[in-house]
Amino acid sequence: RRLGRAHTWGLPALIIVTVFFTSWPLMIWAEPSSNTITAVENYWWWFLVTASTVGYGDFFPTTVGGHLVGVYVIIGGIVTLTTLFTRIAAAIDNAKGQRMKGQL
Amino acid sequence: RRLGRAHTWGLPALIIVTVFFTSWPLMIWAEPSSNTITAVENYWWWFLVTASTVGYGDFFPTTVGGHLVGVYVIIGGIVTLTTLFTRIAAAIDNAKGQRMKGQL
Amino acid sequence: RRLGRAHTWGLPALIIVTVFFTSWPLMIWAEPSSNTITAVENYWWWFLVTASTVGYGDFFPTTVGGHLVGVYVIIGGIVTLTTLFTRIAAAIDNAKGQRMKGQL
Amino acid sequence: RRLGRAHTWGLPALIIVTVFFTSWPLMIWAEPSSNTITAVENYWWWFLVTASTVGYGDFFPTTVGGHLVGVYVIIGGIVTLTTLFTRIAAAIDNAKGQRMKGQL
Ligand SMILES: [K+]
Ligand SMILES: [K+]
Repeated sequence: RRLGRAHTWGLPALIIVTVFFTSWPLMIWAEPSSNTITAVENYWWWFLVTASTVGYGDFFPTTVGGHLVGVYVIIGGIVTLTTLFTRIAAAIDNAKGQRMKGQL
Repeated sequence: RRLGRAHTWGLPALIIVTVFFTSWPLMIWAEPSSNTITAVENYWWWFLVTASTVGYGDFFPTTVGGHLVGVYVIIGGIVTLTTLFTRIAAAIDNAKGQRMKGQL
Repeated sequence: RRLGRAHTWGLPALIIVTVFFTSWPLMIWAEPSSNTITAVENYWWWFLVTASTVGYGDFFPTTVGGHLVGVYVIIGGIVTLTTLFTRIAAAIDNAKGQRMKGQL
Repeated sequence: RRLGRAHTWGLPALIIVTVFFTSWPLMIWAEPSSNTITAVENYWWWFLVTASTVGYGDFFPTTVGGHLVGVYVIIGGIVTLTTLFTRIAAAIDNAKGQRMKGQL
């Protein structure tokens, strides 16, 4: 059961990490160097803000190539981050249930 | 079962494609030519950013007519893209389950 | 069954209409007249863009009073519009199921 | 049953309040004083706009430290506010069901 639960978190987390590290070089290649979205301190922030669907608009791709990489991040990121957020919510619910039964 | 699964993806995908191709000429008609949202390289990007609820604000309609087209895209796009994203998440879960049983 | 289904759409729709028409005068009262968010052609657009969580940032409240009205719209609007979107998605799924059984 | 229901709302609400009050001083520490996001009248608004995934972009963190606090708010806020919104939607559904049985 523990293995199963670890596995449940594993695949979405693996996909999100893969989408992150494969989309970054593609975005660097697609966007002009004047777009600071690809800087090491900005890309992970843009990725999270996009995958969580917050979308502040402080960073976004501007070219057709960058938009295609954006599609990849939007599909790959939203699906997996939403899955992870659902898992966290379920873990909170579970902790709650166990506490009510005096197990926590 | 395979047919059923294909069908499951089919209707939301059909609706999203229909909303896309019917909303585009309407948006061209409604928005002034100064709004680059209707350009071929921008409209699909705005459509995806809206349907995924990311909403960067890099493109948006500005007229009453454009906002009415926006309502159509927001309702038609969000409902169907969320359905497709849920299907992808379920497919990932399913692949996970099959791998655990040694079938993948 | 038909009555029950109509009812299912009724309460969320009623709440969203109520939140819309009660929040509008409050927003007019709270925001300075320089903020065009309260104009008749803009308020419904801002309301939909907020309730759907797209949030382009083309319109938003700017005062503490306007932010309090925003809380009301965010809670009342998101909960009910998400419910309505879920109902539409279920109706699409249902139509799909019936078509497969040759009933549509 | 009433106790159980109160509990159901309690833990997500407790987490969201905790994330709010622990993230605020961290954000004040991380962001330059020129960013008005940390002002008492703005921080709760930014927090709600982020946790609800609306993300207008009227306020956002700008430094690496502020982005790290943003990660904390995005994860902690979205998971718990979505849970609370789901609870509200379920309560509306429940009220609806009881009214149909003539209990309300
Ligand atoms: K946004
Ligand atoms: K958004």
